[in-house]
Amino acid sequence: MSKEITSRETDYAQWYNDLVIKGELADYSAVRGCMVIKPYGFALWENMRDALDRMFKETGHVNAYFPLFVPKSLFEAEEKNAEGFAKECAVVTHYRLKADPAQKGKLIVDPEAKLEEELVIRPTSEAIIWNTYKNWIQSYRDLPILVNQWANVVRWEMRTRLFLRTAEFLWQEGHTAHATQEEAVAETKQMLDVYADFVENWMALPVIKGVKTENERFAGAVDTYCIEALMQDGKALQAGTSHFLGQNFAKAFDVKFSDKENKLEYVWATSWGVSTRLVGALVMAHSDDQGLILPPKIAPVQVVIVPIYKGDEQKTMITKKVNEITSQLKAAGIRVKYDDNENARPGWKFAEYEMKGVPVRLAIGARDLEKNEVEVARRDTKEKRMVSADGVAEYIAVLLGEIQAAMFDKAKDFREANTRKADTWDEFVQILDNQGGFIAAHWDGTSETEDAIKEKTKATIRCIPIDNPQEEGKCILTGKPSVQRVLFARAY
Amino acid sequence: MSKEITSRETDYAQWYNDLVIKGELADYSAVRGCMVIKPYGFALWENMRDALDRMFKETGHVNAYFPLFVPKSLFEAEEKNAEGFAKECAVVTHYRLKADPAQKGKLIVDPEAKLEEELVIRPTSEAIIWNTYKNWIQSYRDLPILVNQWANVVRWEMRTRLFLRTAEFLWQEGHTAHATQEEAVAETKQMLDVYADFVENWMALPVIKGVKTENERFAGAVDTYCIEALMQDGKALQAGTSHFLGQNFAKAFDVKFSDKENKLEYVWATSWGVSTRLVGALVMAHSDDQGLILPPKIAPVQVVIVPIYKGDEQKTMITKKVNEITSQLKAAGIRVKYDDNENARPGWKFAEYEMKGVPVRLAIGARDLEKNEVEVARRDTKEKRMVSADGVAEYIAVLLGEIQAAMFDKAKDFREANTRKADTWDEFVQILDNQGGFIAAHWDGTSETEDAIKEKTKATIRCIPIDNPQEEGKCILTGKPSVQRVLFARAY
Repeated sequence: MSKEITSRETDYAQWYNDLVIKGELADYSAVRGCMVIKPYGFALWENMRDALDRMFKETGHVNAYFPLFVPKSLFEAEEKNAEGFAKECAVVTHYRLKADPAQKGKLIVDPEAKLEEELVIRPTSEAIIWNTYKNWIQSYRDLPILVNQWANVVRWEMRTRLFLRTAEFLWQEGHTAHATQEEAVAETKQMLDVYADFVENWMALPVIKGVKTENERFAGAVDTYCIEALMQDGKALQAGTSHFLGQNFAKAFDVKFSDKENKLEYVWATSWGVSTRLVGALVMAHSDDQGLILPPKIAPVQVVIVPIYKGDEQKTMITKKVNEITSQLKAAGIRVKYDDNENARPGWKFAEYEMKGVPVRLAIGARDLEKNEVEVARRDTKEKRMVSADGVAEYIAVLLGEIQAAMFDKAKDFREANTRKADTWDEFVQILDNQGGFIAAHWDGTSETEDAIKEKTKATIRCIPIDNPQEEGKCILTGKPSVQRVLFARAY
Repeated sequence: MSKEITSRETDYAQWYNDLVIKGELADYSAVRGCMVIKPYGFALWENMRDALDRMFKETGHVNAYFPLFVPKSLFEAEEKNAEGFAKECAVVTHYRLKADPAQKGKLIVDPEAKLEEELVIRPTSEAIIWNTYKNWIQSYRDLPILVNQWANVVRWEMRTRLFLRTAEFLWQEGHTAHATQEEAVAETKQMLDVYADFVENWMALPVIKGVKTENERFAGAVDTYCIEALMQDGKALQAGTSHFLGQNFAKAFDVKFSDKENKLEYVWATSWGVSTRLVGALVMAHSDDQGLILPPKIAPVQVVIVPIYKGDEQKTMITKKVNEITSQLKAAGIRVKYDDNENARPGWKFAEYEMKGVPVRLAIGARDLEKNEVEVARRDTKEKRMVSADGVAEYIAVLLGEIQAAMFDKAKDFREANTRKADTWDEFVQILDNQGGFIAAHWDGTSETEDAIKEKTKATIRCIPIDNPQEEGKCILTGKPSVQRVLFARAY
């Protein structure tokens, strides 16, 4: 029997949790707000990480590693950044435990091992990195620095959700240093494009590229660029951000370089990151009430083969044919698994791999073998078809590409059907409450209005799309003049 | 001009630090005992990590990720493990900072955000992982669990050294669960073999496989297996450990499974790890007074090409030839860099890549071009040879293999020349003080004697080698009977 999943209609949040837990992507842990990423979920993350890492390297970046800890005095140096993250910092205050004199076998924090200066666990690494760059940069010849780091970070969130919002999460953070503003802005935009390319072409998830308003900007940034995706419940999800930091961190950490004319200038900075949150986006965007649906390009297993047999003789014959097919698939670079586990029945396996979102399932029975055929089933559309065993590897190679494209198209159609214009407050509220999705609406450009809209509706401005058409109108809340529509949504 | 390095003879410890800093592997950080791994050092670690990761996967392991934090009550559950690590635990006690009312722009730890239960930053993850395995294991069908994790860990060391001993370090930790003792012991030994294979065949560093004495055992283990390598100063370095944990953690966390007869049994465990410490071993074992010497199989750059020219015309011609060679090398899977930076002279570049340990350097001048030749220089032996440009890619592919083998042989010859027998206390002390290296000597098998020898000489028992010949003798310190020699050394 299939493990039971709550349907999307019944309870979307519970459906999501069921998928993550029963699809074996992650598990709750004994630590408040922290999760365990299980092997299947981690294999998915590894595929995402490796694809991104290649894209970073192709655009000239190198990896490095900076400390987990940020001394409090460094943390507070860039005031806006510090203020933005202060409320969610895990803080190390002691460096030793000792035996509890009151309880045998128990430990207490040793009060004599108090740190002179507390250490913040990095919620993001601008402070520790720019304090280091200070020593690496003297002249324009030392620029640009194009460094990325794969790391864990901690943000003490009060309400956590598997992958989407956890106290500890895995991410990458790029931190680059440049001689000119122009170059830093170009880098910020380039990395936004890399993220959009990855999320669209690997995760099969269309995104809107845009700029954040001041309210939603990264603490310490001059401009925050983002990619925004739409989930099946009509809520938006920020899938990645790329920040132009101006000279804010260079000034906070006094990082100057001598230019070609030997003049001392502050260095220009960017930072950009995506996290394991993307796994949550992937789950929410594509899956259905039977389980996960994973895009072929990042699925840990792309093809699973299930034998259907009675007795050892049939199994041996089927396995022989499967081995042929498997080696053809592997030769084509396809990740394939043959599940000949005798302790589970085919029906159970079908449900299990449906739950786990394996893009293609092959089934081979004794009668199929006689006809030299295999049954090929797609996870995304649930279509099944009999295919000649002779050409099945080529067939599947093409099919995986088709599934990847179909998943993107489906998500894009959904987003387009759920992107609407609102010209009045009533219209805006009605769309939000009855349909959700993105709403393009006029806004007077002030933080106060943005706050008021959020207060009344929980909707936020997700972004001002790049190349947004200029169009005169009136703010949906205040009626004041506006020069362009911006994109609103309720969001994760 | 070459950056200056202290010679090994003058000050071995300073020589090591110079190599790490000037070879651009790592840098000190603002956090006590924590280092920054620079891009060149991280590229080296990535190559090591990727090779190990492939070996783990080939032996059936999968990766996962567990929380950075261990609640104190879980940490103390396995008493020996807790006792062993308690003195070096970084502890998170608070989860928020707030504005300092006394000083504008400064932050203080918010006393109202004190955690109910303190969180230990993992010094190793047995506790948090076995607390999780409890939920994953019910029956023998759930076993074995063969999981590895790449992660950062923190051990608050008082005396730190770049790579060799840092408060935070990167490592992998395998944590496996088995139905039988036999299977767990086999896993422990298998992973020791994987480590030995990696260190010998990728790092070109011969190791001795053995078992630790009780004194040197991992806290919480039944047996600790290790690989031990010898550094150029005659000190040993533990390069990796693999622990048979018996049922200690299963009992501490109450992890039982029902076997085929439906009887409840405690699960058997192993854990095994290597860390960024291996980078330190690599540096210490192979390098010379001119800089690093990196084994080709893990060197970030295997071949560097330096053009020697006057004027643009010569440079253009040389570059054309270099592009041919570069594409041949890349096609052969060789990591090659062409350094045509105009701001540095060839002599500076030669010294720079010597410092960075690039295994092979090609130099091409205008006259070489006429003769269709290139100069090929080996970093390890400093030999130079003129080679026809036509066959240079094949020549280098072979040469890289030769260098890898020669580095291993050199290190092995050194170790063999520095492994000695001592039959009396005087002999033992004299070898230790004048020659160093491994000393095979008789020991009466007691922890007291081992402690006394350590106290008097700073030498420890590195291991009891696997397949150690049995040989009757008398303990070098107490004269009591002994059945075998064990391997002593001073160690990092």
